[in-house]
Amino acid sequence: MKAEIISIGTELLLGEITDTNASYLAGQLPLLGIDLYWISQVGDNRTRLTEVLERAWQRSDLVLTTGGLGPTEDDLTREAIAEMLGEELRIDPALEQIIRERFAQRGIEMAISNIKQAAVIPSAEAIYNDRGTAPGWYIEKDGHILMAMPGPPGEMHHMWRMEILPRLRQRISGSVIFSKTLKTFGLPEGTVGEMVAPLLSSANPTLGIYAKADGIHLRLAAKANGQKQAEEMIGRGETRLRSIMCESIWGTDDDTLASVVGRLLKEKGLSLAVMEYCTGGLVASTITDAPDASAFFKGGLIAYSNEALTAYGVDAGLINDHGVAGPEVAQAMAEAGRLRLGADVGIGITGVIGPGELEGKPAGTMYIGMDGGRSKKTVKRNYPGDRFQLKHRAAFAALFELRKMLIAQDQPGA
Amino acid sequence: MKAEIISIGTELLLGEITDTNASYLAGQLPLLGIDLYWISQVGDNRTRLTEVLERAWQRSDLVLTTGGLGPTEDDLTREAIAEMLGEELRIDPALEQIIRERFAQRGIEMAISNIKQAAVIPSAEAIYNDRGTAPGWYIEKDGHILMAMPGPPGEMHHMWRMEILPRLRQRISGSVIFSKTLKTFGLPEGTVGEMVAPLLSSANPTLGIYAKADGIHLRLAAKANGQKQAEEMIGRGETRLRSIMCESIWGTDDDTLASVVGRLLKEKGLSLAVMEYCTGGLVASTITDAPDASAFFKGGLIAYSNEALTAYGVDAGLINDHGVAGPEVAQAMAEAGRLRLGADVGIGITGVIGPGELEGKPAGTMYIGMDGGRSKKTVKRNYPGDRFQLKHRAAFAALFELRKMLIAQDQPGA
Repeated sequence: MKAEIISIGTELLLGEITDTNASYLAGQLPLLGIDLYWISQVGDNRTRLTEVLERAWQRSDLVLTTGGLGPTEDDLTREAIAEMLGEELRIDPALEQIIRERFAQRGIEMAISNIKQAAVIPSAEAIYNDRGTAPGWYIEKDGHILMAMPGPPGEMHHMWRMEILPRLRQRISGSVIFSKTLKTFGLPEGTVGEMVAPLLSSANPTLGIYAKADGIHLRLAAKANGQKQAEEMIGRGETRLRSIMCESIWGTDDDTLASVVGRLLKEKGLSLAVMEYCTGGLVASTITDAPDASAFFKGGLIAYSNEALTAYGVDAGLINDHGVAGPEVAQAMAEAGRLRLGADVGIGITGVIGPGELEGKPAGTMYIGMDGGRSKKTVKRNYPGDRFQLKHRAAFAALFELRKMLIAQDQPGA
Repeated sequence: MKAEIISIGTELLLGEITDTNASYLAGQLPLLGIDLYWISQVGDNRTRLTEVLERAWQRSDLVLTTGGLGPTEDDLTREAIAEMLGEELRIDPALEQIIRERFAQRGIEMAISNIKQAAVIPSAEAIYNDRGTAPGWYIEKDGHILMAMPGPPGEMHHMWRMEILPRLRQRISGSVIFSKTLKTFGLPEGTVGEMVAPLLSSANPTLGIYAKADGIHLRLAAKANGQKQAEEMIGRGETRLRSIMCESIWGTDDDTLASVVGRLLKEKGLSLAVMEYCTGGLVASTITDAPDASAFFKGGLIAYSNEALTAYGVDAGLINDHGVAGPEVAQAMAEAGRLRLGADVGIGITGVIGPGELEGKPAGTMYIGMDGGRSKKTVKRNYPGDRFQLKHRAAFAALFELRKMLIAQDQPGA
């Protein structure tokens, strides 16, 4: 099956946004055994959009579009597909009702222009959008498939997983593709690449290396005639990768560092508190992205001055003696946060977020203190990057180190 | 001048990397007054690459390619361009010498395959690559221009700035493009679209509408013979948009809600503290993304239980009487945060983050309390979306409402 992706929106041609939708979908298609031959970006121009769609429809079996399904005049995907297929757009009353209810739920008056989002052509089946007002389209005609999805990545990813992927799986027969992603933290991409080099030349299962915000991800994908065979191939690959990467691997597939830490804390019946300086609330915010965070997370104390630190219970003398960006204060923050919020485990994060150095230490110097009552630990890390990157690296590092400490407690002799 | 970008590499079609080269170049072209009509990604396949190049050469005045200039067998850009133009590749001895010296400088032995990087066709001028071994190509023929650049972003950006941009500036005379973005919050995209509809049909300046995480952005772009004329056109468009959108506009261009709020607080010499329940630290983290946050931000108190709220100074009786997700607690949180951290202004955020309802209120019900000592205010908002979206909408709403309150204090009668 030959596939093609078309990303629609003038903002792509103006360089205002980078087309992450195309790379997301491109990463999904190998898991279905579908070959992707072309990706293109086209603006909100009806002539050029129709032309690009026509070429795709001729040369590809599967066409995936994102964008241009909004309510405004420059959203032209529906019109262009209708023109390309020589069909007529009509408002679907049931679809209009769903969109109207959406707005009513939010207590917002619906603009008249939103009605156009309820338009379909005879050969298109509307696809429910759980995250927004724009329905998608599923078209199967003359041996070709076209799926139109909304442009906002949150809406698109959800529609892909819940609606499009199941439809595509049904359509594809024969070999089974099974994949598993192992997520690592703490090693640069080049180093990981060298470590896993012997597996990179394997044709089946294949191994892909992806640099992500929360570390380097390793994706194994196996093609086989049955689920069991594919799973066995993945299992052997995983065993090899785990023996190479050891404790750098912190999770798989849908795991996030927050969900992995949350699961460990719940299993052990432990509660968590954080005290943050340089990460400014990002650790608390990352932890509370998990739907069940209230089961283990007590709260966070964000200090953006030495006065706030002492108000939260960190000894002023300690700050004076050792400076705020050091292991002593990180450890004291972890303890004070734990005690102040009555939690079992505390994390304290301090360091130099920049721009510029602090107490003679360069931006990117981070200290993570952990306090579990009996067990205490502080680690120092140096990261490159701007303020935004440093905050994220330090926040992920704190969760990664906490995971290691929680696991180490189970080891004999800990 | 009609331009087209072609990004070359199978890794793009496998979703292993996102094409940031295209968005970088797309963002550069408007500043030269060059219209970009098409972007496409194509793999390391000679037939398809040649076909994509041929179409681009026919329909575009300027073709920019990135990638496929490396030394390995699957780097085919040189071969495909030669085929497209019907010219022959020959090794340029001077170029070969430069590449050999490059390796010698780095103390690495040159692989034989690198010699192919010294190949050129008669109509191509080699472009020096300061950051790598692959020279670029500059071709001007039959009224078309093609520039081939290496794929690694660091090499490409540098070659663009140092070599390609000066050549393009020389080739382009006359018009100047000037743009300005006005950022709004609080109104859905469809409503904004209808409000500004009269301006959408304008050909110069053009108006674009972009839905972003922090609201709907409106971008005016004017084309004129001089900077002054372009700025005047933008100025008139901005005046009209401001009279239509009024207080929905919170910033322009590089402003973020955090930077706008920070600037207002610094101008007024006020400090800020936040107490967060449902946003779980995201407001504090958003505020501390600004490099100068320590000048006005005292800190944040993240409560993820009623016990933490009362520990932070919120009256337990108030929570019992009114429930935690209500205006009374939002207001009390704002005041307690302000007093606890000795700040001039406090924000308190509570509500229902989901999944599921709380105290009979559906997920997405948010209360934002503000306390500036004399002035107090609470707003209620209902947002759609999952936990992640709700956190972001509530956090941006809190900063947007705080901005409004800070500005209202300056109004007569406030």
